[in-house]
Amino acid sequence: MEDRYSAGRTDVGSNFPRYAAAVLGFRNYWYPVMLARDLGRAPKAVTVCGEQIVLVRDRGRVYALHDRCPHRGVPLSCGRREFPGMLTCAYHGWTYDLQTGRLEVVLTDGPDSPICGKANVRTYPVEERAGLIFVYIGDPASGDGNGTAPPPVEADIPRELLRPDAVVEGIISRQRGNWRYAAENGIDEGHVRYLHRRGLWVLFREIPAWTRMHMGPSDDGDWLTRVVDDVVWQDRYPRVGAWPPPPRFYQSRRRGALEVGIRLPCWLRIRQAGWTSFELYVPSDANHYLSGLLVTTWAWGLSATLQRAKYRLWYRWAYHALFHNQDQRIIERMAIPPEQLYRPDASITAWRRLCDEQARGGPLPAAPPADRPAREPAGMAASVAAAPRGAARSE
Amino acid sequence: MEDRYSAGRTDVGSNFPRYAAAVLGFRNYWYPVMLARDLGRAPKAVTVCGEQIVLVRDRGRVYALHDRCPHRGVPLSCGRREFPGMLTCAYHGWTYDLQTGRLEVVLTDGPDSPICGKANVRTYPVEERAGLIFVYIGDPASGDGNGTAPPPVEADIPRELLRPDAVVEGIISRQRGNWRYAAENGIDEGHVRYLHRRGLWVLFREIPAWTRMHMGPSDDGDWLTRVVDDVVWQDRYPRVGAWPPPPRFYQSRRRGALEVGIRLPCWLRIRQAGWTSFELYVPSDANHYLSGLLVTTWAWGLSATLQRAKYRLWYRWAYHALFHNQDQRIIERMAIPPEQLYRPDASITAWRRLCDEQARGGPLPAAPPADRPAREPAGMAASVAAAPRGAARSE
Amino acid sequence: MEDRYSAGRTDVGSNFPRYAAAVLGFRNYWYPVMLARDLGRAPKAVTVCGEQIVLVRDRGRVYALHDRCPHRGVPLSCGRREFPGMLTCAYHGWTYDLQTGRLEVVLTDGPDSPICGKANVRTYPVEERAGLIFVYIGDPASGDGNGTAPPPVEADIPRELLRPDAVVEGIISRQRGNWRYAAENGIDEGHVRYLHRRGLWVLFREIPAWTRMHMGPSDDGDWLTRVVDDVVWQDRYPRVGAWPPPPRFYQSRRRGALEVGIRLPCWLRIRQAGWTSFELYVPSDANHYLSGLLVTTWAWGLSATLQRAKYRLWYRWAYHALFHNQDQRIIERMAIPPEQLYRPDASITAWRRLCDEQARGGPLPAAPPADRPAREPAGMAASVAAAPRGAARSE
Repeated sequence: MEDRYSAGRTDVGSNFPRYAAAVLGFRNYWYPVMLARDLGRAPKAVTVCGEQIVLVRDRGRVYALHDRCPHRGVPLSCGRREFPGMLTCAYHGWTYDLQTGRLEVVLTDGPDSPICGKANVRTYPVEERAGLIFVYIGDPASGDGNGTAPPPVEADIPRELLRPDAVVEGIISRQRGNWRYAAENGIDEGHVRYLHRRGLWVLFREIPAWTRMHMGPSDDGDWLTRVVDDVVWQDRYPRVGAWPPPPRFYQSRRRGALEVGIRLPCWLRIRQAGWTSFELYVPSDANHYLSGLLVTTWAWGLSATLQRAKYRLWYRWAYHALFHNQDQRIIERMAIPPEQLYRPDASITAWRRLCDEQARGGPLPAAPPADRPAREPAGMAASVAAAPRGAARSE
Repeated sequence: MEDRYSAGRTDVGSNFPRYAAAVLGFRNYWYPVMLARDLGRAPKAVTVCGEQIVLVRDRGRVYALHDRCPHRGVPLSCGRREFPGMLTCAYHGWTYDLQTGRLEVVLTDGPDSPICGKANVRTYPVEERAGLIFVYIGDPASGDGNGTAPPPVEADIPRELLRPDAVVEGIISRQRGNWRYAAENGIDEGHVRYLHRRGLWVLFREIPAWTRMHMGPSDDGDWLTRVVDDVVWQDRYPRVGAWPPPPRFYQSRRRGALEVGIRLPCWLRIRQAGWTSFELYVPSDANHYLSGLLVTTWAWGLSATLQRAKYRLWYRWAYHALFHNQDQRIIERMAIPPEQLYRPDASITAWRRLCDEQARGGPLPAAPPADRPAREPAGMAASVAAAPRGAARSE
Repeated sequence: MEDRYSAGRTDVGSNFPRYAAAVLGFRNYWYPVMLARDLGRAPKAVTVCGEQIVLVRDRGRVYALHDRCPHRGVPLSCGRREFPGMLTCAYHGWTYDLQTGRLEVVLTDGPDSPICGKANVRTYPVEERAGLIFVYIGDPASGDGNGTAPPPVEADIPRELLRPDAVVEGIISRQRGNWRYAAENGIDEGHVRYLHRRGLWVLFREIPAWTRMHMGPSDDGDWLTRVVDDVVWQDRYPRVGAWPPPPRFYQSRRRGALEVGIRLPCWLRIRQAGWTSFELYVPSDANHYLSGLLVTTWAWGLSATLQRAKYRLWYRWAYHALFHNQDQRIIERMAIPPEQLYRPDASITAWRRLCDEQARGGPLPAAPPADRPAREPAGMAASVAAAPRGAARSE
């Protein structure tokens, strides 16, 4: 697997070796991998953190198994839910218990088949919350890959998504690019001021020329957020003069995002006036990620129905298609190194530090570089407070 | 060339090292590569056992040459049969004798061209029988690659195809997958009971739940056949109960295959009531094979014409398209290892042993594993008799 | 990058090591990369000699920069000419001076951004002549890659293209194949007599059976030309008799090319009666080249307009599409080695020697083969005079 995000002439390799090594993400997390409504009767294949997984819905519950039959290596996602609570391989009718992954019945070898109970498919903890399917990718180092009991799934879900009145709409799709390109693009302060300056979504929104910000914890403590200290709407630059040109018609200065925050393993939260956008950057393989784009409001009954309609008619294409395609086009083309960071990249540096110091499991570099001093594990707040120092390294 | 069929956690590597190494098949065999009627005036390119070959028809006879002009590496299949008995390269008019591969004339260098006779293209023995074109792929170790005289082509053709009243119809096409996946799928007993349970072809055929069988020689001695000892049409299984559900309308129990056999280098024979199906799994490159699907009956005159019409109207799509696509979909997705064999895989194990012990030429592993005892070469019958022991290794 | 044109059983590796190593061409030359009229407001990406370059037109002048922003590795060809004399990266508004490549303004970091002046993008000398854009690819060994001052662009342009009355029409497109396959096909004498024997373009032109020629300097001294000594229109060959068959209707013997010459870095000139064809084989990556096909006449006013119309209506498809597709089909399929040269390949051998001895910069083999005697650098005329010796090596 080619990984263009390799260490080199950049701070990633030397300062954040765990992050640099996390080509396939960090382990011991619950990852959202699919909209619940996209999983119907037919098994579905997904690749998460490099693991091939088949998702099956059985009498309302969702199960996740390794997507390969140990008999002859055929994907179980070609198979069928032939019996309740079981998944049957399409090739020879090997039938596995969805809960345990144990081979229970081999239809084509009779009731006394001696191989029953002697073949197993790895299972993954899976939960359904907020209209999303979550799979727990445990540490492969610990025995069956799930040695440590997973934390409750709620620990890895933004709390406002868990409210009973949450109305969640969106899409999850596989896209080109390593998950870290997508995550760094998500928390990146600078590009919003230039890349997203044009397009239908911002037609009536005025975009500042530049801002000063620092990274800090969100008020609920879960997120590493960009805290804007200063906004400059237009400025005069050497050689090029005033920029940007004044708006030709009314553009609101109030409709920008109120707060943007990121958290492990791969969530971005963008608080807007009256609604919140969530983005997901789930590691798939080295050069693909699962891109989740969600719009969330909180309402009941008719009001909830109207919100869903508004999503279908407006957000879905103006925001989730047009606006995010501007990002995706860049994410596909980014290649690091080279990398030469500048002041607004403090948001990226703080995110890299957060991952490097606080990510639960995941790959540890074989030999940390000699020039890296031992670090004390620190809480997010401490990490965030330290971010400006990291940012000072860039210019 | 990636070969997903690699040795590893499977019996292939340790027990059958010649078979495991035969990524590109076994040498010193006649391989059927094309329907005779598909070769018209234009040269055609095929890849067999990793060799690039151009086939040319000249005044009724077929010739096979290495598909690359030694001058500048251009494929000769781009060229033309410019003169009787000759093939001319499209680029500079280098003209080769079809029989010998000798460079006879170089049109663009005049009649006295000194290079004539100093360049040669390798030729391959080629024969036409039963509507098929056969190419002999000799041992590359022996000098010009054809050091040993090939056996008569009839030695490598099922005898019923050679009968003068044989009516052979079918298709040969290049498909994804190593030839061994396809061959093992062909002789595999178990998958017929599950993978092929649905579809137009079996609409009026009842499929048993499972069978007991052993491998044995065919009555004519040429084939390693599956001998069915016991057929169970429906059974009760632990946890899932009765299976399969009883037929909803009349399904015949008599219309199944009467006998299925395999033989080197890559033939499968499926005797049905009144007709016989042959399948071919010709090695092409590491990840492709030439898939031959033939339907054979024996008739003269009007009866033969009716059989050909029946093939076009019914077998061609119900059997050779719909039914075999179920297999092809699996063959493309198989990846070994992992591999964990079960009782019905005795058919696969016996085939692997047959190849390993009796294949004529072909790759020999550099160093056989230490744990493999020396074996006496044995006839097919002996090998077959030993198969149950091999099968006992699986569960 | 796979390069099928590798050294081996051919004279390229042992006799012409600099040429064999020039997978990506020779450095220190002006390469034509695009028709001037194809570069409008939007930046365009090209790959020349393995270098990714963005071309930008600003107030009439053309600029060339390395096509990657040092910030995060995004191609600058995604960006815009946001301000006069500047190119702005699409991602964060990093704005570079087109002339110097210096980072002048970072829109999203304010007027006092401390990174200004600390990031640079490599620039390439670029000129516009005869309706073509030329980029100078300097030696990467010398510091910034442009250590030595480039020669005047006119030194690398055929002089008749520089005449004020030159009417140049044509196309430049990226094609499959290494540039050396294309260049050797261009100067190759032999294939014209066979590959191009059929087609609309030669319908009324008689093609000789074969010719004798030697390589010599053109009358203006700039080109290595094929000098035809003897033309045989039809001949009798052993085994195949008279060839070619006599024309079935009137075909002119006068309308063939008058003189074909080649020169470094990648130009071919084909003088025809009343007009001249130029071909370009610009190295792109190991397996692609920029194919330039130009038709040139010399005229003013209405006569020039008529020439342009004639190109659009006739040459463009009969010559630049149909005729050249015969070549491209071969160039894509060639693979050397094998290689076994014959008499007419003296043209190829002389071209290889010319490159090997006289190409300005470019890759030098790490260790020249021991059997290769030291050579005195020699002028083109000397090299050409020596060509028959080289040709004598082939048969």
